[in-house]
Amino acid sequence: MSNFEKVVEKYKEIQLRACSILEKCDTKSRFSNDNWTKDIGFGTTNVINKGAKIEKGAINFSRVSGEFTPAMAKTLGKQGKTFSATGVSSIFHPTNPFVPIIHMNIRYFEINTGECWFGGGIDLTPHYVDISEAKVFHSKLKDICDKYNPSFYNNFKKNADDYFYIKHRSENRGIGGIFFDHLKPSDKNGFDSLLNFTLELGLQYPNIYSKILDSKSSLPYDENEIEWQNVRRSRYVEFNLIYDRGTKFGLETNGNTESILVSMPPNAQWVYNHSVKSNSNEEKTMNFLKKEINWLEL
Amino acid sequence: MSNFEKVVEKYKEIQLRACSILEKCDTKSRFSNDNWTKDIGFGTTNVINKGAKIEKGAINFSRVSGEFTPAMAKTLGKQGKTFSATGVSSIFHPTNPFVPIIHMNIRYFEINTGECWFGGGIDLTPHYVDISEAKVFHSKLKDICDKYNPSFYNNFKKNADDYFYIKHRSENRGIGGIFFDHLKPSDKNGFDSLLNFTLELGLQYPNIYSKILDSKSSLPYDENEIEWQNVRRSRYVEFNLIYDRGTKFGLETNGNTESILVSMPPNAQWVYNHSVKSNSNEEKTMNFLKKEINWLEL
Repeated sequence: MSNFEKVVEKYKEIQLRACSILEKCDTKSRFSNDNWTKDIGFGTTNVINKGAKIEKGAINFSRVSGEFTPAMAKTLGKQGKTFSATGVSSIFHPTNPFVPIIHMNIRYFEINTGECWFGGGIDLTPHYVDISEAKVFHSKLKDICDKYNPSFYNNFKKNADDYFYIKHRSENRGIGGIFFDHLKPSDKNGFDSLLNFTLELGLQYPNIYSKILDSKSSLPYDENEIEWQNVRRSRYVEFNLIYDRGTKFGLETNGNTESILVSMPPNAQWVYNHSVKSNSNEEKTMNFLKKEINWLEL
Repeated sequence: MSNFEKVVEKYKEIQLRACSILEKCDTKSRFSNDNWTKDIGFGTTNVINKGAKIEKGAINFSRVSGEFTPAMAKTLGKQGKTFSATGVSSIFHPTNPFVPIIHMNIRYFEINTGECWFGGGIDLTPHYVDISEAKVFHSKLKDICDKYNPSFYNNFKKNADDYFYIKHRSENRGIGGIFFDHLKPSDKNGFDSLLNFTLELGLQYPNIYSKILDSKSSLPYDENEIEWQNVRRSRYVEFNLIYDRGTKFGLETNGNTESILVSMPPNAQWVYNHSVKSNSNEEKTMNFLKKEINWLEL
């Protein structure tokens, strides 16, 4: 079995397992199972809607290949003639505004030049920042990283701070996490080591999120908190449509639009000149949407 | 007075007049009057919210200048060292789903090479396409165009069809209208003629829209029609954040984010794999979101 096929098989398993854990956690709604095929390849999109805890969420698997276009070359920062890519991407928008949005992506690329690399990450976007939750989240990511390479967490945490930045709002999307791209097999971390690293992220992801969902989904909330959630969701939309590399890559390569944009929140609200009250929880949250916060030592 | 200052003065008048007409039409809410200043220039953003007929709308005036960045050169398809630009841009999201969204923009650019041009247009995005409304709308635009140049309407109508296209959805944003860019003074239409053309668009715009608001705002509607309006609004968000040249230019030049993104709808809804019922009004609308429809002869 080629390396590519090996990744494909393992990533499919990750998708199935995550659906099973999160479906069990939600208790009410079930994931759809939509297979799609386009010129560029095929995939499976599993979507959950109007659950007890999850308002909208998805876990996508895809496997695509084709010719390198100029747009792709620019988005990837690579040159080549043909490419193959496979990945799992996932996003969950919770019902309760005190539960954060979570996002995970693991992906593997090969180009005809022989070059190959992994990319991905996990990050959290709370509507309301909860310091102890952020600490637990970051320390779990650090534990996974440390098993593979002592430099991974610091480097990938910094990448996430830089990547999940909404320039036109001068704010970070959330509290970050880890993000990596163009991670190539090396003497220190060969192909199998990097594959296992991404698999472990995919395996831990549903556990991390279902714990948060379980502990916070029954917290009471009011209309103002829902409005705030909708305003934060609008920032999520802005990030994904303007900056997100995966969304751009997908739309540029004529991917499956419904699977790419399943990351959009169920709804979003834009309020002109929206402002937060002094000393409110909303203001505290805004003060945490910054780079270079060392969550582990807060 | 320089040509640039002349345009600035006239465009400011257009903004005031449009606010006055649409405020009178709405009967309930008033426009805010927000002056902003940034390194790049200044502007006034007039916003109306939660009106009797208008859920959210804005008329922006801005006047900016600065150095040509590589991103700008790419967005504009021009080379230069410095530029000045002034314009009025406006968008209205109605309360009633049977009333269309309307958008108008007129703008004037000068670059240090001596090159100057006008751009702009008016287009309509119905949540429900109404053929007779579309016919009246397009014939009014043709009447204005014909006064200046017999080729304007056909050329600019085609431009709008091409420009307001949401590639990843394979659908047009609405029923189009007219759109033009890089319209330079020529023997046939000198600077004054082009300025007057854009002024006439700015003058007719509030009349065209207030007639529609008056005639349709009291039509009854239900929850399903509001959901459909919110789904159509999500497509508007996608167009503006992914394709709209003005939005890109504004965000790239570090413009005033709140004024640029005031075009966003008050809310929007994303439904995975949303489909329309056979023979429904929603399906009929989707069938009209196409290029090359000759609305005048339908």
